Amino acid sequence: MENHSHHKHDEALKILKTARGQIDGIIRMIEDGRYCIDISTQLLAVISLLKKANTSVVNRHIETCVREAAKTGEVDEKIKELETLMKYIEKSL
Amino acid sequence: MENHSHHKHDEALKILKTARGQIDGIIRMIEDGRYCIDISTQLLAVISLLKKANTSVVNRHIETCVREAAKTGEVDEKIKELETLMKYIEKSL
Amino acid sequence: MENHSHHKHDEALKILKTARGQIDGIIRMIEDGRYCIDISTQLLAVISLLKKANTSVVNRHIETCVREAAKTGEVDEKIKELETLMKYIEKSL
Amino acid sequence: MENHSHHKHDEALKILKTARGQIDGIIRMIEDGRYCIDISTQLLAVISLLKKANTSVVNRHIETCVREAAKTGEVDEKIKELETLMKYIEKSL
Repeated sequence: MENHSHHKHDEALKILKTARGQIDGIIRMIEDGRYCIDISTQLLAVISLLKKANTSVVNRHIETCVREAAKTGEVDEKIKELETLMKYIEKSL
Repeated sequence: MENHSHHKHDEALKILKTARGQIDGIIRMIEDGRYCIDISTQLLAVISLLKKANTSVVNRHIETCVREAAKTGEVDEKIKELETLMKYIEKSL
Repeated sequence: MENHSHHKHDEALKILKTARGQIDGIIRMIEDGRYCIDISTQLLAVISLLKKANTSVVNRHIETCVREAAKTGEVDEKIKELETLMKYIEKSL
Repeated sequence: MENHSHHKHDEALKILKTARGQIDGIIRMIEDGRYCIDISTQLLAVISLLKKANTSVVNRHIETCVREAAKTGEVDEKIKELETLMKYIEKSL
């Protein structure tokens, strides 16, 4: 896979660093014996955050790589990749 | 939005008709006072089925409409649509 | 599994009948060759609706069957069932 | 909320530490300009992992706190909490 400038994923990067900190927090909550429902609520918040990061990554991909492929006419591979990703998204989101 | 031949969504159509039958079945389960856990398990199965139908619809769209736009060079609108759809998928799947 | 009065699932029943009608609508959209993005958007709305029906069924179960078991002290089976359901929910929602 | 021994969440703790490491890896992938589809695939894997951690936390809660409440007869609050959590799970999973 070709190398990309990562700047287009600045939004996802920011979200991931936030999620990283929240996971540290949840680990501390467990180690401090905090109440299960509070732990689960935090976990669900991180899951929503990571879904947002994923949407950002996929949309930047569509905006750049897919647009680029449209220009060059080499869409087959991009289309195949997006279809595979959609199946994976169906299972994971 | 332009009119499409629906044949490309034959797979989704088949899944939807199956899901419709299953929902009829769940309605009967409730009316027959069947056990809650069995009802929920059936409901979760229909949700998974409809996710599959959605992936099929989106992938056929990517394969046809996006490919078509790539040929004509009119990708902006298709890209915008896909990005909006990804955000909706994030919330709903 | 013992027979239940279904009235406690009136909310879920109402949602299911709405979802049933929406699926009919989506089938027509496909047969009419409507635009893929519009079809997917409708499908995602039905998925959200069915998730709501499932939450209603599970919560009525928790409110009645689990409460009942707590009174009689026979919680083991109910707890096992809920745990199995949570794993299924993880995969399907 | 009463303090709990956290040992019952050892499974979730282990998963969370794995997920934290994977998020570090995804941050590096973005900073190294790795391909978007690969980044998204990793992100979806972490989302699935965190869903598993959440199911573990909720199930241990059901097994201990709900069972405890059944013994003492104080189920109302536990039932209310579980119902609220189910609604949050519906939105986030």
